Amino acid sequence: MAKKIIPDIVIGRLPVYLRALGFLIAEGRQITSSQELGDRLGISSAQIRKDLSHFGEFGKQGTGYDIGFLYDQLRTILKVNKLWDVVLVGAGNLGKAIADYGGFRGKGFVITAIFDNDPEKIGKPMGIDDVIVQPIADLAESIKSNGVTVGIIATPAQEAQAVARIMVDAGVKAILNYAPITLTVPNHVRVQYIDPVVGLQRMTYYL
Amino acid sequence: MAKKIIPDIVIGRLPVYLRALGFLIAEGRQITSSQELGDRLGISSAQIRKDLSHFGEFGKQGTGYDIGFLYDQLRTILKVNKLWDVVLVGAGNLGKAIADYGGFRGKGFVITAIFDNDPEKIGKPMGIDDVIVQPIADLAESIKSNGVTVGIIATPAQEAQAVARIMVDAGVKAILNYAPITLTVPNHVRVQYIDPVVGLQRMTYYL
Repeated sequence: MAKKIIPDIVIGRLPVYLRALGFLIAEGRQITSSQELGDRLGISSAQIRKDLSHFGEFGKQGTGYDIGFLYDQLRTILKVNKLWDVVLVGAGNLGKAIADYGGFRGKGFVITAIFDNDPEKIGKPMGIDDVIVQPIADLAESIKSNGVTVGIIATPAQEAQAVARIMVDAGVKAILNYAPITLTVPNHVRVQYIDPVVGLQRMTYYL
Repeated sequence: MAKKIIPDIVIGRLPVYLRALGFLIAEGRQITSSQELGDRLGISSAQIRKDLSHFGEFGKQGTGYDIGFLYDQLRTILKVNKLWDVVLVGAGNLGKAIADYGGFRGKGFVITAIFDNDPEKIGKPMGIDDVIVQPIADLAESIKSNGVTVGIIATPAQEAQAVARIMVDAGVKAILNYAPITLTVPNHVRVQYIDPVVGLQRMTYYL
């Protein structure tokens, strides 16, 4: 089936399914159903079956999904059955929390380089893998020489666009942006935003 | 116009518009257009006009939007023209980064209470407002006595559901969840998720 016809909103739910399957595996479970997954995720079972049907037949009528098999298939579809090198720019409190986060490696990502312009941070190790912080002047060369395509921006808003431009010019094609600003990037580059204020304001409307 | 007919996806874009308007104000600008906003945000101008039309007439044909007026209107619509008290549970690296973040107060939120179970953290000040960390045993009483309705969860995954239950039982109606797990909450409670792995995996599909 051609990839292009699958809506992005479906792709966006696959990591959530993958995460739920990971918890089921950790619980020692082997078989699940679209009903159980739906109950856990607050998504209808019909939606889950429809989403997965874009990629083939994963469940057998009446017996449900083999959790390990579906987990492996989703990892392959999302291309996280390998480890992606990730560059992190910004070694402040937020960057430190990201570098210290233990949940990336098991999910397909490893932060292999960290950049900041603070002389107090440059040259010192950071995060669970003790990556040495480098000056942002070295960012482009690092991305190019290592063929890195995934970047995380955890800088203040006013620096984020310049960092994004360096990343993109050097070959990054996917950016996770924690800076509270919408980035301007070429069409071939994907950006996902993490802004707690947007998440909070989206809810207060309903209060 | 009845609120219920406005799709949640439209509500979800309003904080992004508000953020962009805030940057325009900081730049000293007074008038903008749906075209300019769209260019900055990567959203079509037609979409922006349609989204805003749910709430009334904000722009004049040919003269664009008064930035300050639209900013104030969106703040009122999203109910962030007031300060919401927020409880934060989890005072680890991530909780510290959240408590240190200076961007909440100007956007309608202030973290007024922080909770953790680590004896090393309890009783000590944390974050830009030097909020004293309290034990999670005191969470429910704090929420109830202060009438808090917004909570942030920055605990490990295995503790998040229990914390969410305490929050909801005590009166919280909106939860920003950083723990990498889908929470089970009653229908009247809103949850927004912040999981960097989900954001990253959603992009690697396309690489």
